[in-house]
Amino acid sequence: MSETILSSKTKTVIISPDRPFTIIGERINPTGRKALAREMAAGNYDRVISDALAQVAAGAHMLDVNAGIPLADEPAILAHAIKIVQSITDLPLSIDSSIVAALESGLSVYEGKALVNSVTGEDERLEAVLPLIKKYNAVVIAISNDETGISEDPDVRFAVAKKIVERAMDHGIPREDVLVDPLVMPIGAMRYAGRQVFRIVRRVQDELGCNTCCGASNVSFGLPNRPPLNGTFLAMAIASGLTAAITNPIEHEIKRAILAADVFTGNDENCATWIKVNREVAAAQPPATPTPTGTPAPAREARERKFRREK
Amino acid sequence: MSETILSSKTKTVIISPDRPFTIIGERINPTGRKALAREMAAGNYDRVISDALAQVAAGAHMLDVNAGIPLADEPAILAHAIKIVQSITDLPLSIDSSIVAALESGLSVYEGKALVNSVTGEDERLEAVLPLIKKYNAVVIAISNDETGISEDPDVRFAVAKKIVERAMDHGIPREDVLVDPLVMPIGAMRYAGRQVFRIVRRVQDELGCNTCCGASNVSFGLPNRPPLNGTFLAMAIASGLTAAITNPIEHEIKRAILAADVFTGNDENCATWIKVNREVAAAQPPATPTPTGTPAPAREARERKFRREK
Repeated sequence: MSETILSSKTKTVIISPDRPFTIIGERINPTGRKALAREMAAGNYDRVISDALAQVAAGAHMLDVNAGIPLADEPAILAHAIKIVQSITDLPLSIDSSIVAALESGLSVYEGKALVNSVTGEDERLEAVLPLIKKYNAVVIAISNDETGISEDPDVRFAVAKKIVERAMDHGIPREDVLVDPLVMPIGAMRYAGRQVFRIVRRVQDELGCNTCCGASNVSFGLPNRPPLNGTFLAMAIASGLTAAITNPIEHEIKRAILAADVFTGNDENCATWIKVNREVAAAQPPATPTPTGTPAPAREARERKFRREK
Repeated sequence: MSETILSSKTKTVIISPDRPFTIIGERINPTGRKALAREMAAGNYDRVISDALAQVAAGAHMLDVNAGIPLADEPAILAHAIKIVQSITDLPLSIDSSIVAALESGLSVYEGKALVNSVTGEDERLEAVLPLIKKYNAVVIAISNDETGISEDPDVRFAVAKKIVERAMDHGIPREDVLVDPLVMPIGAMRYAGRQVFRIVRRVQDELGCNTCCGASNVSFGLPNRPPLNGTFLAMAIASGLTAAITNPIEHEIKRAILAADVFTGNDENCATWIKVNREVAAAQPPATPTPTGTPAPAREARERKFRREK
């Protein structure tokens, strides 16, 4: 199985279908967060720091850092944010920008082997970003769209992913340093958005031997009760071979679905993590008489509270 | 896509990968339920009736009926239970026994096209059960073990399933009237029990064109906090192609995972069922300020209570 290795100065993360799923915290992103955008533009990184620490505490394996603020000096802000986040956590980071100069600025200050988020299949982007990936010995997220847009045909999106992987190899980047993003569309607007992702992920694993990473939160855009939707979507994608996601580990339902999925891929050996997270509260409960509705509600609620603390 | 049709006297259920997942209620089963066993053996079916009605209210599409009580007259009790359950609900039933005479007794009183649970790949069982399936125009669950036991190799289990389907066709039973059961083992005892099921289900769909049905509750045997494990397992199996399960629809976490999985297979058109179940409470909430932890807990808990009522 393909192993994708990322690192900070002192910590290594390996993404692989034979290891627990990799959670990349999504919170350090000013898109749609006005206060955070205003603060970052003004040089105030307090919220960046608290978001980083909260995601570390919630069990993130990596953190995504985005500084996409309109009219701001994104290369400078992104580099500054990366330096600050690297000073307070040893998790490897994902350097997230649609501006090539910002990616390079972030890479130039990053200590370790970074994840770069992202490159598309557009020729111009490929020729701008891939040399940076090679130069800085980074890993890149390959988004499966190109000049023609985002196809609704998963096999067309797979073909774009394949093209990016081949182009990366032309640049001397090994296939394990490309994480394919199948592109997750809102299910409320596109009925087969889920099936598309499951098929692309499976084909990428079987035919390209690459690992995969997606942004998982938009899938439930516009729908009520989003966290369990996001968690279930991720579990289904993991069953199809997904190896990493940029998501919110602080959200209980998402974290729990990922831990349960690790149990069923066989990547939570002896179910040790699941048992650790759940055992203490279960042991503290009085023995419950089984009822037709299963676990009595008070016991369940106590476990849920415990679960939130454990994260 | 293969369509498996089951019916009572007045209601039809179609199992298909292109329709919402089929939930077969598991509760009418005296195994491990001493009070129920004692009552059924004494001719008291009150609890059978209340279990049936509770599962209907929780959204079951079919009900499994089992009368496996040691030293009791299982054929007579099973037939009686089936007549009573058919008198109070129009859901199609699964006639569940390991005793061929009990299966025939149940089939002889059943009104409609029944599901028979089950036949294994053992030659003696095949030749005893398949003629009944043909005679009564029923559907059969094909369990993927044989004289050699249950293989840990999913490809061996697939081969057993293939043999059963071929033997059924020799008896004049069409492939859509065979539901393959991949055999779900406890994940706590068998690390790759999940992966095995996902692979068998996918191969059965791709190569045999049959639908699949599993008993889902044992997968979490011995582990803490079982309902979310069972729900996540089912979602992952659904992503792999699973079309039906014998499970507990009264358990909130299981039901919710199945409804979310229907969203992502594209089988909850316009997400109508998901929205219906969740919208009323969401509308009643005051607009919440998004927080780093997502939905505020009180709103979430209100929705959860609502969800339980909706079922």
